[in-house]
Formats: sequence, C-alpha cells, structure tokens
Amino acid sequence: MTDDSSRAFVPGHVTGFFSVHEADDPEKAGSRGAGLTLSDGVTVEVEPAVETSMQLNDEPAAVEAVTRVLSALGVEARVRATTDLPVGAGFGVSGAAALGTALAANRTFDCGRSENELVAIAHAAEVESGTGLGDVVAQARGGVPIRLDPGAPEYGRMDGVPAWTRIEYLTLGERSTSAVLSGNTDRLSEVGVDKLVRLVEEPTLPTLMETSREFAREADLLTPEVESVVGDVLAEGGEASMAMLGETVFALGNGLSRAGYDAETCETYPAGARLEMP
Amino acid sequence: MTDDSSRAFVPGHVTGFFSVHEADDPEKAGSRGAGLTLSDGVTVEVEPAVETSMQLNDEPAAVEAVTRVLSALGVEARVRATTDLPVGAGFGVSGAAALGTALAANRTFDCGRSENELVAIAHAAEVESGTGLGDVVAQARGGVPIRLDPGAPEYGRMDGVPAWTRIEYLTLGERSTSAVLSGNTDRLSEVGVDKLVRLVEEPTLPTLMETSREFAREADLLTPEVESVVGDVLAEGGEASMAMLGETVFALGNGLSRAGYDAETCETYPAGARLEMP
Repeated sequence: MTDDSSRAFVPGHVTGFFSVHEADDPEKAGSRGAGLTLSDGVTVEVEPAVETSMQLNDEPAAVEAVTRVLSALGVEARVRATTDLPVGAGFGVSGAAALGTALAANRTFDCGRSENELVAIAHAAEVESGTGLGDVVAQARGGVPIRLDPGAPEYGRMDGVPAWTRIEYLTLGERSTSAVLSGNTDRLSEVGVDKLVRLVEEPTLPTLMETSREFAREADLLTPEVESVVGDVLAEGGEASMAMLGETVFALGNGLSRAGYDAETCETYPAGARLEMP
Repeated sequence: MTDDSSRAFVPGHVTGFFSVHEADDPEKAGSRGAGLTLSDGVTVEVEPAVETSMQLNDEPAAVEAVTRVLSALGVEARVRATTDLPVGAGFGVSGAAALGTALAANRTFDCGRSENELVAIAHAAEVESGTGLGDVVAQARGGVPIRLDPGAPEYGRMDGVPAWTRIEYLTLGERSTSAVLSGNTDRLSEVGVDKLVRLVEEPTLPTLMETSREFAREADLLTPEVESVVGDVLAEGGEASMAMLGETVFALGNGLSRAGYDAETCETYPAGARLEMP
C-alpha cells in the first residue's frame, strides 16, 4: 500500500429469500428479504490514478458498480479487489466491491461523506448496474440482516436475527443475477414477501433456513443439482438452502461436510463493511 | 459456562456531545449526538436461575437497567458482567450491561426476539432507569455513531463517521449521569443540536473532536481537571475531549501518552453488540 491508498473489508452476503421493489430513484429501489453476511468477503484497496482501472484477484476486471461509485465521488482511482469467494455465484461480490470502493475512496480522497451517504452511493451504483438489489445494505450492516423495507439507508429499514454461527458453502456453477432480475419477478416477489412476514414473526436461524428453502422451491429457482445437495444435508439432520442468485448451497454449522461434501467454511460476520486500520 | 448459558460482548461508548429528547414512551425518548464505540467493552453471561442476581467483575451489583431487561423478557437469570472499563466514568457500562443481558437472555431462554426488539428493550430499560439516553443504540451499531434522531430502532435514525482509529482514555474520577440528566438540560441540548448540525455537514473525526470540545465548554460541563488534561493533549498537537458524562478524557491515536499521561489504549470497534459463538 502506498501512503495515500486506503483499504476496506466488506463481508460476503448470501440471500435466502427476497422480493423485488422497483423505483425510478435507485436509492429508493431495492429488495426486501433476509440472508447471512459472511466472514469470507472482499478486500478493496483504492489509490489515486490518472485514469480509473480495476483488478479483481490480480486480473483486469470491469465491475460496472465500481466505476459508477468512483464517478459519483468524482475521482479517478486504481481499485484492487481480492476475494476468496466464488464470483458470480450469489455471494454479493459486486456489491462488496462497490461498497468497499466507496469507503476506501472516501478516505483516500478526503471526500467527507458519512457512512450512510457512502452506502447510498454504492447501493444506487449496484441497482443501476442491474447486478444486485439488497446486498449492499446488508453488507453495510453485518450479522444476519433482515431487509424490512427496500432502498438506501435514508429509505430502507433493517432488522437482524440475533445469532452468530459457523457456515459452510458449496458452489456448483455460475448464474447471472441480472438475467433473473430482468425477467418477470412478480411471482418471486409475492413469495418473498410471504416469507418475510414469517421470519419477522419468528426471527430465528431455523426459521430463516426453512423460509429460504420454501422460497427457492415456490419461486421455482431451484436447480436439480442444488436441490439434490440441499436434500442430502437435510437427510443428515442439517440446515441448508440456496444462495439467491447463484448455483450455491449454504448450510449452518458443518451441514455440508457432514453430508460428505467438500465445502468451504466461514462464520457469519458480526460487523458491517469497514475501513481497515491505516 | 454451563450448557444453557449464553454470552454477549458489547463495546464501550464515549459520547462527545448530545442533546436530550424527552418523551412519555421510553422507546421514543433518547438523545441525539455523536461519539465513539470502543474495543474495550462489557462481556455479559446469562444463565437460568430461580431468582435474578447480578455480578459486575465478580462482585454483587445492582444495575437497574439489567433487572428491567430481564423483567421485560419475563425471565429470572444469573447475570455476570465483566469489564476492564472504569464504571461510572462515561463509558456506557450500564447500557452495555443492559444490551448484553438482552442479547444473551434471548438466546438462553429462546425468547425469539429480533435484534431491533432487543435493542428497544435495553434502550427503554436504560431510559427508565435514568442512567443513559443514547449509549444502547450506539453500542448496538458500533463504529463512530452519529445519533440523528433519538429513540429505539423503530423511531431513531443513525449514521456514522467512516473511520477506524486507535483511542486512548484516562479517567480522573466518577460522575453521576443521572444527576446531570435530572437537572435542567435546555442549554446543553441547544448546544448539542448545534454541534450535530456541524458534524452532519462534515462527518470526519477531526470535526467530531472539535465539536465535542466546543460542546463541553459551551454547555459548561468541563471540570478544571479535565480541561487541563485536554489542554495538554492539544498543546502536543493531539486531539482530545471529555466523555459525556464522566470525569474522563479520550484522545485519538496516542494523544494522551504523547502528552505524558499513563492512559489506557483501545480502538474504535467496527461491530455492534454481538452474541459470542456458542
């Protein structure tokens, strides 16, 4: 790191269920739903540059939401994001890159924005890029976020399931968030709101996992591969569901390894996105 | 820890400036203002008991807000709180004990409350006990919290200064929060709102420290001892102010030790109050 570079860490986020809420103002658009933030996440380093460029895991990359964040802050920067999470598999990597860029660029360039303002910029950038609707506000909060109302901090409203648990995950392939979001989401959203009502009545981890499984099935988002892995975890007495939107299974505790899968291990992450100590 | 005991950690919190907002409903009452959450905090362990009892650092203790939290949840428990923070010196120890009790008791007794509901219970307990107005919601959030609107999560609104920094603190004696809060707070609140407007315009650490110093002086809360220590830190080019309400000086970085004081060291705490892993 050079003297004027800054670094931020943003937790990964898997969504269990959600509903889509459109609005002309990208700060008001978003999703309701619930999921888990993860100790596996994205580290973003930002330093001043003559022209904006970006790397993801040391390879040149173009994440539209990141470019939009830098434009909104009026700066040109070199952005380097690194992550152990699978990309394009439902872990909110694009949202994390956008939010980490906002936090780190704010410090590098002394932009003087508040945390809510930076979250709003990253959320709007992600919505306008069509790559996500609720990851950024969840990643800004940490824990096991419940998104009660959609949108950036000024409009949205959040709660959380009070829990801290080990998590395992297994990715079977890639899946495009924007392809699903650009289709008809009416049925999906109807189911998502039903599940939210249930979780708010009983905000516990078992209820989150159960409503997530029901959502995946009822909204017709389960693939046969994911369904088979989830079934194996349940057969061993574990709790698992599908990450929205990715070909990914996540499980509480050691649910996947107990069912014989070679899964990645992490924990829920108690903090939201944060700058690293200078 | 026994099998059915649970443990939570709650960061300490020093307030730099504040204004008082009264309301009949303790969830709507509270304070606006800003401060820093600290990696030094309070660990609270809760286990079922025939009759409620409490210890603070292995001594029998009576913290009214803790008793009120257990009553609100309808449970009897043995509560053990431990902390390295000075008690009665402006670090929000009573709020931390109340919030940690709410989180840990919710798990021990399977109360099924959400995080917002637990924060609301602890906030109301603290307000009704007269021991604090804004610590609980700040401690639930973590980071460098700005309390934009008073009250529990359903009513309050928060933002944050995006920063992570080393902190030093020095306590010169005890001071009663309830004695100040039960007096006339009109002038204090007028000054506090002015400072909040300034910080919202420029949400940075230097502005937080400057507005905090101005508040302490203009609201006439500085004692000669605190003023002298703060002056010594400033003379060495450091940033310091007084913890509201305590005979305590807090400084950014190594401001106190550089001025020759034997201070405690910690960091701002990026997460809010949280359960510990079972």
